[in-house]
Amino acid sequence: MVTTRPVSPDDLDLICRHREEMFRASNAPGRSDELLRTMTASFRVWIEPRLRDGSYFGYIAEDGGAAVGGIGLMIIDWPPHPSHPNQDKRGYVLNVFVEPPHRRRGLAKMLMDLGEAEIARRGVSFAILHATRMGRPLYEQTGWSQTAEMSKQVR
Amino acid sequence: MVTTRPVSPDDLDLICRHREEMFRASNAPGRSDELLRTMTASFRVWIEPRLRDGSYFGYIAEDGGAAVGGIGLMIIDWPPHPSHPNQDKRGYVLNVFVEPPHRRRGLAKMLMDLGEAEIARRGVSFAILHATRMGRPLYEQTGWSQTAEMSKQVR
Repeated sequence: MVTTRPVSPDDLDLICRHREEMFRASNAPGRSDELLRTMTASFRVWIEPRLRDGSYFGYIAEDGGAAVGGIGLMIIDWPPHPSHPNQDKRGYVLNVFVEPPHRRRGLAKMLMDLGEAEIARRGVSFAILHATRMGRPLYEQTGWSQTAEMSKQVR
Repeated sequence: MVTTRPVSPDDLDLICRHREEMFRASNAPGRSDELLRTMTASFRVWIEPRLRDGSYFGYIAEDGGAAVGGIGLMIIDWPPHPSHPNQDKRGYVLNVFVEPPHRRRGLAKMLMDLGEAEIARRGVSFAILHATRMGRPLYEQTGWSQTAEMSKQVR
């Protein structure tokens, strides 16, 4: 039976592994194992104080007490925008991951429902995420739509 | 002759007008004048301290001493990511606007070149923006590409 619990600072290693595996599974070009390991080392330094102070929050899914997936959440500062004209915050969903043997059981959907509800509970109306190819169908089925974000390496 | 100068706190009204006109010109569905005015009122409160402390920066283009366009820039905190594996920052480009009579003269390109160079000068390697339909062709021509960002109203 699958249960969920909030993330805690003790989940540091687990969340770092989820993030690295999520990017590895996305099979995007130019993402070597070496690059992903570098990213994870930097991410660990970045997330550790944020897990402690609660500015990074989220949930872990467990099956029989063993972690089988997770979701990360943040409330980020953002200039008021037509999509949130009265608010200077956005919810951000990241590090959504389910262990391969536990996929196709609705765990990602369960974690996303929890995450969206928690963002709303905190009074924030608008949320963003960056989809991997694997995640996109679920997000499209649950009301998420593509934005006009673009990116560039500037140096 | 067109010149450029850094934005200053005295540009508060100008930048608010640029942002509102930019969104108005984008003709996106559901963006009534009333909604845009609400957004601008909130944005003014948000940007005012950031213009003063320099966390919102950028440039104004002038023709014969009169402002004819502008670009806004921020360095935002972001979790280390495969696109910037060693950095926990992204550049953000916003409020790119050129007055209609001054379009098709390369001003937006000039402002973008300045903005990208300033982000790079501050040591940040990766930048994002959200394109309006009008801006997209310029960005595509100058090396920007679509990301996988998605969004949802959660309450």
